[in-house]
Amino acid sequence: MAKIIAINAGSSSLKFQLFEMPSEEVITKGLVERIGLKDSIFSISVEGKKVIDTADIPNHEVAVQLLLQKLTSHGIIESLNEIEGIGHRVVHGGEDFSESVLITETVLDKLDVLSELAPLHNPANITGIKAFQQVLPEVPAVAVFDTAFHQTMPESSFLYSLPYNYYTDYGIRKYGFHGTSHKYVSERAAEMLGRPLEQLRLISCHLGNGASIAAIEGGKSIDTSMGFTPLAGVTMGTRSGDIDPALIPFIMEKTDKTADEVLEVLNKKSGLLGVTGFSSDLRDIETEAEDGNDRAELALEVFANHIHKYIGSYAARMYGIDAIIFTAGIGENSDVIRERVLRGLEFMGVYWDPALNKVRGKEAFINYPHSPVKVMIIPTNEEVMIARDVVRKAL
Amino acid sequence: MAKIIAINAGSSSLKFQLFEMPSEEVITKGLVERIGLKDSIFSISVEGKKVIDTADIPNHEVAVQLLLQKLTSHGIIESLNEIEGIGHRVVHGGEDFSESVLITETVLDKLDVLSELAPLHNPANITGIKAFQQVLPEVPAVAVFDTAFHQTMPESSFLYSLPYNYYTDYGIRKYGFHGTSHKYVSERAAEMLGRPLEQLRLISCHLGNGASIAAIEGGKSIDTSMGFTPLAGVTMGTRSGDIDPALIPFIMEKTDKTADEVLEVLNKKSGLLGVTGFSSDLRDIETEAEDGNDRAELALEVFANHIHKYIGSYAARMYGIDAIIFTAGIGENSDVIRERVLRGLEFMGVYWDPALNKVRGKEAFINYPHSPVKVMIIPTNEEVMIARDVVRKAL
Repeated sequence: MAKIIAINAGSSSLKFQLFEMPSEEVITKGLVERIGLKDSIFSISVEGKKVIDTADIPNHEVAVQLLLQKLTSHGIIESLNEIEGIGHRVVHGGEDFSESVLITETVLDKLDVLSELAPLHNPANITGIKAFQQVLPEVPAVAVFDTAFHQTMPESSFLYSLPYNYYTDYGIRKYGFHGTSHKYVSERAAEMLGRPLEQLRLISCHLGNGASIAAIEGGKSIDTSMGFTPLAGVTMGTRSGDIDPALIPFIMEKTDKTADEVLEVLNKKSGLLGVTGFSSDLRDIETEAEDGNDRAELALEVFANHIHKYIGSYAARMYGIDAIIFTAGIGENSDVIRERVLRGLEFMGVYWDPALNKVRGKEAFINYPHSPVKVMIIPTNEEVMIARDVVRKAL
Repeated sequence: MAKIIAINAGSSSLKFQLFEMPSEEVITKGLVERIGLKDSIFSISVEGKKVIDTADIPNHEVAVQLLLQKLTSHGIIESLNEIEGIGHRVVHGGEDFSESVLITETVLDKLDVLSELAPLHNPANITGIKAFQQVLPEVPAVAVFDTAFHQTMPESSFLYSLPYNYYTDYGIRKYGFHGTSHKYVSERAAEMLGRPLEQLRLISCHLGNGASIAAIEGGKSIDTSMGFTPLAGVTMGTRSGDIDPALIPFIMEKTDKTADEVLEVLNKKSGLLGVTGFSSDLRDIETEAEDGNDRAELALEVFANHIHKYIGSYAARMYGIDAIIFTAGIGENSDVIRERVLRGLEFMGVYWDPALNKVRGKEAFINYPHSPVKVMIIPTNEEVMIARDVVRKAL
């Protein structure tokens, strides 16, 4: 028995989840928000009830101190010594990390270098790691990478058709993200199907505010829709996904913006928000579409269409498939999107049941029993994957 | 009976083909190269033999004068009065032109405005039109657009997930190209299949130095791989096709280039040339790959893989397909690429015959007779489509 804490540190936030291992019981979880700002918010679940405090939390180190103090003061643990391992989500592991790794000074130096590839994410992840090193220096910590699962992609999948030295000199290639989630749901799918993962060809659709699709053959990612950054692929909440790259210079000229400013538009003002003009939240958009808003309807079509086409392309990539998996906020909860994504895939063996498709947020098969290709909803659980990797790598 | 000339004017070139209509017999064809440079080259086919001259041809108007003079001096026609119509290939028709159009001053003004969307192509096309207006002012001329066939795409296919006003204010959307070719082969496919075009769902693969894939449902383009410009989509001879758009600012910073300079790299130094490092010509690359060159092999895989995945995505888009068509230089001649593109598509009803696949450059079915999805090679003929549209619009 060991208590493991899984951490996801953002630039001004820190999510945590405390596990009892190997039972994988969640002892508590919570979130610190607005770190470095006034009136930071600390929420933690105590005996199933959410307890919220506000306090000025100037930095991640103070957030970690407060977190540990609350764990004991609420009686969740008796002593900090009970925490035997820490798992940190790290967005970018580049080509250096194809699996989770025990954090050492050498590893931290590499993460620093990799910040260049994920300037919005890795520095925040590193801040979280260092905060725990200050407060719990003796407890082993493991980095779990969003990119690691996709390191099995063959070069024909990950290479862009650019001058080859861009890959060798600058690391320009497809990395892919959401790997921990795609790995979790693919492993869970094999269990639910009662078949060995090694024999399965799966398409995993992680559809949240960020969204990515992965082609998973024999338990290995062989292609995915996100690219060098999490901007590429399908339409997302505020991200454009794939566009004609020639548009960037054109938009720069038309709007008198720098390349970085255009990139900001592609990341923050595009996607569902850009198409609808009013929201990046799919629930709002579904409601508006029902009320007859044409642009909301268009956004649903564009979004579902992208996913639908990726499913076709990844089915071709794997010469046919055994199952399609939906996960993350939209994937788990939106029957409207799932219906539009699945419509018309009978030609490749996908027979889904509109009645079963109504299910929300729990593990389920939504295909007809006779369907050669199974369709599954599997709520993702990146935190438990982090906890498992801490056990594997550090204990 | 009428003689029609089909023209494809580039910035320093002019291709021509003279037809007898309605028989569609090619009376002669040829090419003027290095217009505006020293030692321009004029080649024309006379009674099946290619006659080549060099001369200084300072501009397109002189090229047209020379062309007309050669037509009579070689006895190909007796008098210029026999030419009853001129058809001009124009790359970009924007949203203004969803079919070919008789050229008037108003049309020319619109083409000028559209030059903004195709700065490398439309100005050259306009130069060709004006040269003929000077030399044969009385002969009606028709513009035939590369984009026109794709104007049937629904908004959910052509809209990018960008701020919506980018579409309404700047015309930013997917236009698609090679439309005349996709239209020709889809019509020809219906004839070869002996079925009404209206009932067919076709995927057309135009694979030349430029390459694009189109989803054609009931004779109408409903999606295509090229985008706002001909840069998007699959890997091409020197063009990158789709990449993560976030790479542009990254490459700018890494290589100290402007956005336009990076775009130049994406258009001229990428694609097969970029991956192999030695050639944009697929024939060279196939030879090198056979000789064990790894990067050549990789380039073939990357290129075929892109096309293979587009076929999967467009099959999904149309809920299954009736036929796949290969056309243009590579599509008509490379059994190596066709094999890699078609491999593993049995799950969607594509059973192709490796023996039949050996055919080059002529109309053929290469599927097994029992295959639900037919696979066809159809040499493209954009020139005859231009001549037909001249008859339809001008005579």
